[in-house]
Amino acid sequence: MTNKASSGRFFEDFSLGEVIYHATPRTITEADAALYLALTGSRFSLFCNQEFAQRLGFKQTPIDNFLVFHIAFGKSVHDISLNAVANLGYAELQFYLPTFAGDTISVLSEVIGLKENSNGKTGVVYVHSKAINQKGHTVLSWKRWVMVHKRQHQMLNSFEVKPHLESQLALESLFAPTEFNSKHYDPQISGEKYLLGNYEKGEWIDHIDGLTIDEAEHTMATKLYQNNAKVHFNQHQMSNSKHHERLVYGGHIISLCRTISHNGLANAQWLLAINSGSHLNPSYAGDTIYAASQILDKVNLGSGVGVLQVRTLGFKNMSWQQMQDQFEMELDGKKSYHPQLVLDLNYSLFIPA
Amino acid sequence: MTNKASSGRFFEDFSLGEVIYHATPRTITEADAALYLALTGSRFSLFCNQEFAQRLGFKQTPIDNFLVFHIAFGKSVHDISLNAVANLGYAELQFYLPTFAGDTISVLSEVIGLKENSNGKTGVVYVHSKAINQKGHTVLSWKRWVMVHKRQHQMLNSFEVKPHLESQLALESLFAPTEFNSKHYDPQISGEKYLLGNYEKGEWIDHIDGLTIDEAEHTMATKLYQNNAKVHFNQHQMSNSKHHERLVYGGHIISLCRTISHNGLANAQWLLAINSGSHLNPSYAGDTIYAASQILDKVNLGSGVGVLQVRTLGFKNMSWQQMQDQFEMELDGKKSYHPQLVLDLNYSLFIPA
Amino acid sequence: MTNKASSGRFFEDFSLGEVIYHATPRTITEADAALYLALTGSRFSLFCNQEFAQRLGFKQTPIDNFLVFHIAFGKSVHDISLNAVANLGYAELQFYLPTFAGDTISVLSEVIGLKENSNGKTGVVYVHSKAINQKGHTVLSWKRWVMVHKRQHQMLNSFEVKPHLESQLALESLFAPTEFNSKHYDPQISGEKYLLGNYEKGEWIDHIDGLTIDEAEHTMATKLYQNNAKVHFNQHQMSNSKHHERLVYGGHIISLCRTISHNGLANAQWLLAINSGSHLNPSYAGDTIYAASQILDKVNLGSGVGVLQVRTLGFKNMSWQQMQDQFEMELDGKKSYHPQLVLDLNYSLFIPA
Repeated sequence: MTNKASSGRFFEDFSLGEVIYHATPRTITEADAALYLALTGSRFSLFCNQEFAQRLGFKQTPIDNFLVFHIAFGKSVHDISLNAVANLGYAELQFYLPTFAGDTISVLSEVIGLKENSNGKTGVVYVHSKAINQKGHTVLSWKRWVMVHKRQHQMLNSFEVKPHLESQLALESLFAPTEFNSKHYDPQISGEKYLLGNYEKGEWIDHIDGLTIDEAEHTMATKLYQNNAKVHFNQHQMSNSKHHERLVYGGHIISLCRTISHNGLANAQWLLAINSGSHLNPSYAGDTIYAASQILDKVNLGSGVGVLQVRTLGFKNMSWQQMQDQFEMELDGKKSYHPQLVLDLNYSLFIPA
Repeated sequence: MTNKASSGRFFEDFSLGEVIYHATPRTITEADAALYLALTGSRFSLFCNQEFAQRLGFKQTPIDNFLVFHIAFGKSVHDISLNAVANLGYAELQFYLPTFAGDTISVLSEVIGLKENSNGKTGVVYVHSKAINQKGHTVLSWKRWVMVHKRQHQMLNSFEVKPHLESQLALESLFAPTEFNSKHYDPQISGEKYLLGNYEKGEWIDHIDGLTIDEAEHTMATKLYQNNAKVHFNQHQMSNSKHHERLVYGGHIISLCRTISHNGLANAQWLLAINSGSHLNPSYAGDTIYAASQILDKVNLGSGVGVLQVRTLGFKNMSWQQMQDQFEMELDGKKSYHPQLVLDLNYSLFIPA
Repeated sequence: MTNKASSGRFFEDFSLGEVIYHATPRTITEADAALYLALTGSRFSLFCNQEFAQRLGFKQTPIDNFLVFHIAFGKSVHDISLNAVANLGYAELQFYLPTFAGDTISVLSEVIGLKENSNGKTGVVYVHSKAINQKGHTVLSWKRWVMVHKRQHQMLNSFEVKPHLESQLALESLFAPTEFNSKHYDPQISGEKYLLGNYEKGEWIDHIDGLTIDEAEHTMATKLYQNNAKVHFNQHQMSNSKHHERLVYGGHIISLCRTISHNGLANAQWLLAINSGSHLNPSYAGDTIYAASQILDKVNLGSGVGVLQVRTLGFKNMSWQQMQDQFEMELDGKKSYHPQLVLDLNYSLFIPA
């Protein structure tokens, strides 16, 4: 009799065009939102102030985009990345609708690309994932690609199919939350006066503050998202890995950087899209995360609202003053990153104009 | 003036037949359920997916049986086991009714057995505890026995009264949740296809995954349950004990094993009963918990539902492959357990047939 | 272009009579209450038992006074104490109204005193802060004073303005919760029989139990309160400070002492006022907190309720038996405190008579 527990999918288990329905759809509650505050320290008003959210036009406090993403992403881990060697990147992540406490999120992924590595041991799987609420509406979607182990070390000589990935979502494809009426927006609530017009293309913001990751904090966050990737939870196994320690879920790093970025981007309340994202180096408990952001572009959408396209860098155990001149280097014509740079995120934020 | 703070009961403070009304009845909320996810990583759909629970027939998402048990159990600690040398075992734990967010749980215990130990220093107290909701309905009940210190080291030469304890609850005494309509059960939600008919008597399941316990995680869980046993919380005191460290609440180990067992038992959504349970060795922060289960019996109840009687072993810092041949040994005709075996639980789970 | 992130106010940035509207008003939820239980272990029935709260006359379970205070206090940190050298003290903290899940709290502070220190490097700022709910009602108010860095090291030779601070709030100025009908008070719920009449002026209570602080626990609590003072969160920076470690938020120590004081003060359910409070020494993760209380006064208000004025001392890594004879000493005519004494709190609790 074969063991009833699943050890996840290997490269050979994916086929192009296959749609995978991920297990354990989950109802998101007000309590998840409170836990998200406690685990990240987030202070964006839209997600923790019901009066503010309702004044803007939301029926109730929406759930933080990043929390929705983490829960949706967590659903896909068991099928897609349980045996991942590495999460290589994200692209085309986009929000369509706000999520409210009580909504239940299901997640599907379509395999949109497959590529064997020449070592015969691993391959790259590209998926397009969608999170759908209980009414059947798509809440968000994203593409990501992961390097996964092969069950058997050999070349299958399958065709390589690499999907087209936009390096940036077109402005007209973004869904601004229709509830957001900037007429009633009061920057005194966020504590910062900077709106769309105050940001300049190319401008850097040093978010100053650092947040140290504790072991129970990142594991609780990742368990809350029901993300069951072993690298975050099994010290007994990780002790024998090259890391020696549990890895912090990359999404937790994104959330910490988002929290830190409140200091300088406090009015950029809503995440429209993540154009691209890479975890450049691993983080461990004990690391202190810092962040700095560059304004890549800004677009006034009219009606008192606009979009900031932002690149946020997350780095650890050093300040932006130390990091700013050395985060990216050309080495023999190849781009190389500082070993303490942990995140490079290009995303689009909705902000009153 | 005597100190107003209580240091708990000693062996002499219990009398046979006495009913103890435990302090601080507590309202269970949706937030307790979210915290339970974050603290254990549980993924059973019945407790985190409102659509799923309602499709089965529940008016709303029920509260995880183990969370209800931990909160109810926590109430009994101050009176029963604050001065416990050891929690010797559980038996006849049984659920009668589901609990929903908003329900308030009170707990009573009747002293059903007393037995002095020949060393004159300790005795064993047997209690029958009941958790009752705000409507006066019994939600669950259990028996347990603990070894407690005597106030004074001497023999009282009291009669020994050992209660009768069923080694297993009779099938006909179990209360299946009447709400559970398996016609609408969709195994795609749980992510596993195995229903009652797929399990075989004697079959072992290696649940594979390991979960490392962090200090703040087990203490937060235990505080959430308002269990105030000192051994979990007071490092200053524990440093001078033979353990040197705080002990992890045994119930947290049960919950971690239940979480891990989702991989292989994902459709066994509801706990009907715990027939017997023993914490064989202590666990500490830093330990990685693994679990394996044996199917002891299965019974089809008709109407598309059935009962799996399961023995789940929890062990630490070694895989089932290493543990499976040595968890139990006969030593001079006496059963002995592997020092890394931490839990031996015999329980009955409700599962669609 | 100047950096858009704020590094907080320095002494020069405060002017007498200025009213500062603090950012990020916040809706308090049932989930915050559950997290507060998990983070502190609190067991006061009024805040976790809906049936009990409603029997007394509350429309629903009120939010724990200390949780409301921590969230309100957290709002003031960014403007008042981000660059604090030390939180010198609290006075005249007073509750006016209960807060319920769903209420949104905004916080304002008026600068009521300013005093340069002769070293030219720091000054003391006194503020009077008010927390106001979404209906415009004041929920609580307090005064506190902090020593903050100057932007530039020089004497401004400004006038010294020290506000009048009551050492104790007058009885007639306290707002007892009008909902509290002691006729329906059942001490069996709290598990303690002691009501107002059972306490004697001068009496000490050794609360016995110790609670060890874990790193993730105090940082999660402080993040839940959206208190973003760096000293609690940035290990990278604190490693180079004289502390070498992150400091535990003083309010977390207050909450732990309140939790511990349940054993001996279980019926003192409601906080009317904090007359004065000082954090005498810092606490760090790993410290075990103990507490003892002295009854300073008791007043019967009639209608079956009264006020206990209590002094609670919090100390670490030693029992009250060891601490009681040496917590306060006169040294050359100056009061000095034991280095393991961490809190001296004088407060007024509402209790059935």
